Amino acid sequence: MKKHNFYAGPSILPQYTIKNTAEALIDFAGTGLSLMEVSHRSKEFVAVSNEAQQLFKELLDIPAGYHVLFLGGGASSQFMMVPFNLLEKKAAYLNTGTWADKAQKEAKLFGEVVEVASSKANTYNYIPKDYVVPEDADYFHITTNNTIYGTEIRQDLDCKVPLVADMSSDIFSRQMDVSKYAIIYGGAQKNLAPAGVTFVIVKEDALGKVTRKIPTMLNYKTHIENESMFNTPPVVPVFAALQTLKWLKELGGVKVMEKMNIEKAGILYDEIDRNKLFKANIPDVNDRSVMNICFVMNDEYKAWEPEFLTYAKSLGMLGLEGHRSVGGYRASTYNALPKESVIALVEAMKAFEQTKLK
Amino acid sequence: MKKHNFYAGPSILPQYTIKNTAEALIDFAGTGLSLMEVSHRSKEFVAVSNEAQQLFKELLDIPAGYHVLFLGGGASSQFMMVPFNLLEKKAAYLNTGTWADKAQKEAKLFGEVVEVASSKANTYNYIPKDYVVPEDADYFHITTNNTIYGTEIRQDLDCKVPLVADMSSDIFSRQMDVSKYAIIYGGAQKNLAPAGVTFVIVKEDALGKVTRKIPTMLNYKTHIENESMFNTPPVVPVFAALQTLKWLKELGGVKVMEKMNIEKAGILYDEIDRNKLFKANIPDVNDRSVMNICFVMNDEYKAWEPEFLTYAKSLGMLGLEGHRSVGGYRASTYNALPKESVIALVEAMKAFEQTKLK
Repeated sequence: MKKHNFYAGPSILPQYTIKNTAEALIDFAGTGLSLMEVSHRSKEFVAVSNEAQQLFKELLDIPAGYHVLFLGGGASSQFMMVPFNLLEKKAAYLNTGTWADKAQKEAKLFGEVVEVASSKANTYNYIPKDYVVPEDADYFHITTNNTIYGTEIRQDLDCKVPLVADMSSDIFSRQMDVSKYAIIYGGAQKNLAPAGVTFVIVKEDALGKVTRKIPTMLNYKTHIENESMFNTPPVVPVFAALQTLKWLKELGGVKVMEKMNIEKAGILYDEIDRNKLFKANIPDVNDRSVMNICFVMNDEYKAWEPEFLTYAKSLGMLGLEGHRSVGGYRASTYNALPKESVIALVEAMKAFEQTKLK
Repeated sequence: MKKHNFYAGPSILPQYTIKNTAEALIDFAGTGLSLMEVSHRSKEFVAVSNEAQQLFKELLDIPAGYHVLFLGGGASSQFMMVPFNLLEKKAAYLNTGTWADKAQKEAKLFGEVVEVASSKANTYNYIPKDYVVPEDADYFHITTNNTIYGTEIRQDLDCKVPLVADMSSDIFSRQMDVSKYAIIYGGAQKNLAPAGVTFVIVKEDALGKVTRKIPTMLNYKTHIENESMFNTPPVVPVFAALQTLKWLKELGGVKVMEKMNIEKAGILYDEIDRNKLFKANIPDVNDRSVMNICFVMNDEYKAWEPEFLTYAKSLGMLGLEGHRSVGGYRASTYNALPKESVIALVEAMKAFEQTKLK
C-alpha cells in the first residue's frame, strides 16, 4: 500500500534523494566503493561538500559575507554554540515553544537572558507580537517554526540587534531575506536530509565579539576556516542534503516550493475548519504553521480520537499522532510531502465525519 | 576491477553493513519508508538503537555500571567533552600523535594539563614507556592508536587515576578489559560505521565530580538519562553500526577479529621488512600499529615513491597515500579489510621490487 509519511522529523524526503543516496551507498561517484567507506578528503566527496554549500547559497540567495557550515550534534548543540560565540553580556529570546524555551535556558549558562515575550501560558498557541528587544542585547533569538504546537513566524523580522533563528523545520519552505539574520541554524532532518547533519548560515562579521575562550569544535571560526572539513563531516547526510538541494532547484527553487506548501497547508486547514469533528489548535490563521498542522477532535467527539488515528493508519498514513505533550493530531507537510498525501488525509477526514455524523 | 580499500577513515566497511544499510534506505524494517525518513522515536528505530547498545556491550564484555552512548560531533568533540565532564584541577595526557596532541591542547582550556611523556620530537615514531602519571590527576588520557604515524598501545594500561582512551581507530580490533577505563570514546568511521556517529563508553561513577556547569548537550549525564535519545541521533550511522556489530558477532567476535588483524598486519610488516625497496616508519615492532601500517621507500629509491602509488592504483588499490604530514604510504588494515587485499598489496610490492631491482 502507498504510504503517506506525516512524521514530524526525521520526516519525508524526496524519492530523488532516497534513490540517489541508496545507489551511492553501493557505488559512489563511480569509485567502486560505498559512499560510507570513502575518505572525506577524496576529490569525489570534497566535490559533494562544495556543491552542497554552493547550492545552499544559491537557493536561499545568501549574500556575500555569509558562510554555510555542515556540522554534527544537532540543533540542540546550537543552543549552546550560539551563546558560546555571541553572548558577551545579554541576549534576548522569544519563547514560542519547547525548542525556543530550551535554547533560552541554555543561554543562561553564558550571560543575562531577557525573555522578550512568551506564549507558554497559553500552551504556545500564538506568536507574541508586541514586544521590545533591548537595544543593548548581543543578539535576539527566535525559533521560526514551532514543530510541536504548530505556530510559525513566516516573515523576516526587522531587528536592530543581530537576529539569530532556529529554522530546523522550515528552512527552504519559503523565500527569505538572509541579510536580515546574523545566524540561521537547524537540524537537517525535516526539509533536507536524514538526521545527523546540522546546517549553520553564519555572517562572518557577527563573530569575534566575545572575550571568552571557545573550545575549538564549538567555535564557528574553526569550521569557517576549514570549510566544514575541520573534522570528518557526516558524509552520508551531507550527500543526501545535496540531492535534496538539486531536487529543489530542478522544481524551481524555494519560490515554487513556497507556493506548493501554502497550497497544501491551505487544503488541510480548510478541511479542519469545515469539518464538524475537528478543530485547529492555533486560532489565529496568521500564526498557523505551514509545516506542522496541529488539530484535535472537538470536545464532544474526543472519544473518537484514537479511532480516527487507527482509520488513517489503515489507509497508509503514518506519523499523524500529535506530540506526546500535546495529543491529538499533527500532520507535517514538509517540502517533500506530495499534495496527494494531503488530499488523502482530507478525504479520510470527510469519510470519517460522514460515517460518524450520518 | 576489484577495489582494495586502504583508506584511513572513513574506511572499508563490511559488505554486510553496506548491503543492509542500502536496502534499509529503500525500505526500513518493512515500514515501506526509507530509514532516512522514519521518526527516531518509531518503535522500529528505538529497537535498532537498543540492540546496537546491547551488542556493543556484549562484544566488548562491558561490565555493569557503564553506559554506551551514540553521539554526534566526532571524536574531536570529545576532546572538549572529556575535560568539561572530568577536569576539575589537573589532567595528565600522553602525547603519542596528532590527535593526542589536539586532545591535550583542548583540555588546557579547562585546567592544568600535565604531559607525562611525548614522542613528538621523534615524529611520533614510538610509544613512550617510562613516565609517571601524577596521582592527583583527575584522569589520564591516552590515544590508543595513532592513525597518522602508525603506532599503537595494544594493551590495557594499569593506572591509578581514571583512564580515558580515544579508541577511534582500534575499537573492536582486539579483546580488551573495559573495567580498566573510565571513558572510552571514538569516531565510528573506522571499524564500525560511516562518519557521523561517535561512541562513548562511560563509567557512571566517573561523572559528577566537577563543579562547573556543563551545557546540556555536552553533559554525558544528559545522554545517559535519555539513552542516547535526548535529541535526534544520527539515524543512518547508528543503523550501519548495528549491522557491523552483527557481522562481528557472526564472525566470532573480537577474539577472532584480533587473530585475523594480527595475521594481516604480520603479512604486510614482514614484506616491508624483507623488501629492499621499503622501510617501516616505526622501528620498534612492539609499537607498530595493527590498524595503520606506515612505510616509505628507502632513501636510495625515494624517487620511485609516486610510481609505486600509481602502480598500486592501477591494480585497484585505493587510499594508500601516507597522511599529508608524513608522506610515503599508509595501508589501513581495519577489521573489514579482507586478507586478500593485504596479499594483493604484498604481491604488488614484490612485483615492483623485481621490476626495479632486476
